[in-house]
Amino acid sequence: MFNQLGLIGCGLMGGSFALALKRAGLVKRVIGYSKSPSTTERAKKLGVIDDTAESALLAVSGSDIVLIAVPVAATEATFKAIRHLVEPGVLFMDVGSTKRDVVDAARRVLKERVPSFVPAHPIAGKEVAGIAHSDAALYAGRQVILTPLPSTNPDLVQKATDVWSAIGAQVLKMTPENHDAAFAAVSHLPHLLAFAYFSAVVKQPAGDDFLALAGPGFRDFTRIAASDPAVWRDILVSNREEILKQSLRFRHTLDALEHVIRSGNVEALEDLLRQAADARGGWQMNVGGSKAPAPR
Amino acid sequence: MFNQLGLIGCGLMGGSFALALKRAGLVKRVIGYSKSPSTTERAKKLGVIDDTAESALLAVSGSDIVLIAVPVAATEATFKAIRHLVEPGVLFMDVGSTKRDVVDAARRVLKERVPSFVPAHPIAGKEVAGIAHSDAALYAGRQVILTPLPSTNPDLVQKATDVWSAIGAQVLKMTPENHDAAFAAVSHLPHLLAFAYFSAVVKQPAGDDFLALAGPGFRDFTRIAASDPAVWRDILVSNREEILKQSLRFRHTLDALEHVIRSGNVEALEDLLRQAADARGGWQMNVGGSKAPAPR
Repeated sequence: MFNQLGLIGCGLMGGSFALALKRAGLVKRVIGYSKSPSTTERAKKLGVIDDTAESALLAVSGSDIVLIAVPVAATEATFKAIRHLVEPGVLFMDVGSTKRDVVDAARRVLKERVPSFVPAHPIAGKEVAGIAHSDAALYAGRQVILTPLPSTNPDLVQKATDVWSAIGAQVLKMTPENHDAAFAAVSHLPHLLAFAYFSAVVKQPAGDDFLALAGPGFRDFTRIAASDPAVWRDILVSNREEILKQSLRFRHTLDALEHVIRSGNVEALEDLLRQAADARGGWQMNVGGSKAPAPR
Repeated sequence: MFNQLGLIGCGLMGGSFALALKRAGLVKRVIGYSKSPSTTERAKKLGVIDDTAESALLAVSGSDIVLIAVPVAATEATFKAIRHLVEPGVLFMDVGSTKRDVVDAARRVLKERVPSFVPAHPIAGKEVAGIAHSDAALYAGRQVILTPLPSTNPDLVQKATDVWSAIGAQVLKMTPENHDAAFAAVSHLPHLLAFAYFSAVVKQPAGDDFLALAGPGFRDFTRIAASDPAVWRDILVSNREEILKQSLRFRHTLDALEHVIRSGNVEALEDLLRQAADARGGWQMNVGGSKAPAPR
């Protein structure tokens, strides 16, 4: 049980965390700060936070758990704003979709206070952004990846594990490097491809006519192309090295498929398609409670 | 009301059409043929067809409506098998996802009998194939594209429109060329990309570990990578010219995005992402009963 959650960034992710903690009876009071005062006010009116803070630092003051839920690129500035109140024993977490850059920024800015920071990435979201879409159930049944450093306070890692578990998430631990490689492959690249594909369709002369004919396959394939551009701008830039590596792998596979299509080698084409279809047919999304993969 | 539906190809698409006609009281009897006798027997046991035919020609004999529901590449052979019984006044349709190749085959094989053939493409399907997944509601609320030739019997086009409408589909008409260009863009290319992307992930050394971390965005983006390899082999080869054109457009958009990612131009990147996200956010799938786009 925490006395006060300091929420820095009152958006979908932060708001949902605050609501989930409240619903689970894990926190007495939530104080929130957002860059835009109108957002902070809205969060208060919606009952997501109990009180507004005039700065990130004031949101930290008196809190025994702090969640930094800002776009990844704003994390370093947030660390700078709060570093004087990063005390041992207080659990600091973020929710960023990339971890190497966050961990680097934490090392640079927090220095000897870095053990208080437990980097976290909840695998959850919606295609709608903003505090108004906050949902106490957003993290239930989802995976949360923690990427602690060797110097991170193990008691705080345990506290982080307990709080995410208590709101229904399944907690995994891995290194920031393995995290970023994995999510470049299964999350960041698909977002990039969906954005690129949707743009390519919509920008051609007959694009609107084509879109009127699109069916359920198209709908699901492009769902993530509606994701928040500000969030994805940061992710795509901060993890670009791994994403471009994955994109190259994808391009090679696409080249190979197009080669057999061009040559009309239907047996080879069917083989390649079948390998993918069988593997996808046998895949199931991991959800909370199911067996976790071994940390890498 | 038809006396007898001759079903050539007892799979998901054909079986669902038979069930839908039966449920709507549009047909007295369904006779079915499949290349594999065990499939035809299964269709009969499941009540999808009332009787089995020993050849495609025998399925046509005595039928006043015929649905050819075989993989696209098998359409020409089917036309050859049945051409002697392609009589005026009998409605012949297919369900192929490509139309230029089907229309070319019809012209080549059916010759002066081609007016009886109304090429059709219902925009419906499932990621599971086979007669056992037949569903009387598969076409309800879906679009069906007819691509009649100038010589196609207009009475049969009307009959085709009526029968698809009666089972809940929304009927559009366009040329085979416009059809193939449009579906290369909104259906065939996304399938190719999903197959390529899923293969690229699963074939890398840490692929299995990565897949264990994938979330709902990945799940939806790759759903179509589980589609029937035999069906998609045919589609990708038969419409390759249009698909490769669309793939090139996609590659150019991906190149442009990667260029701004590499250069770290976050404003330009956010602009590109926002254009896609806004357009996708404003897009809605056309469903039966909604306003149809103008035929092109």
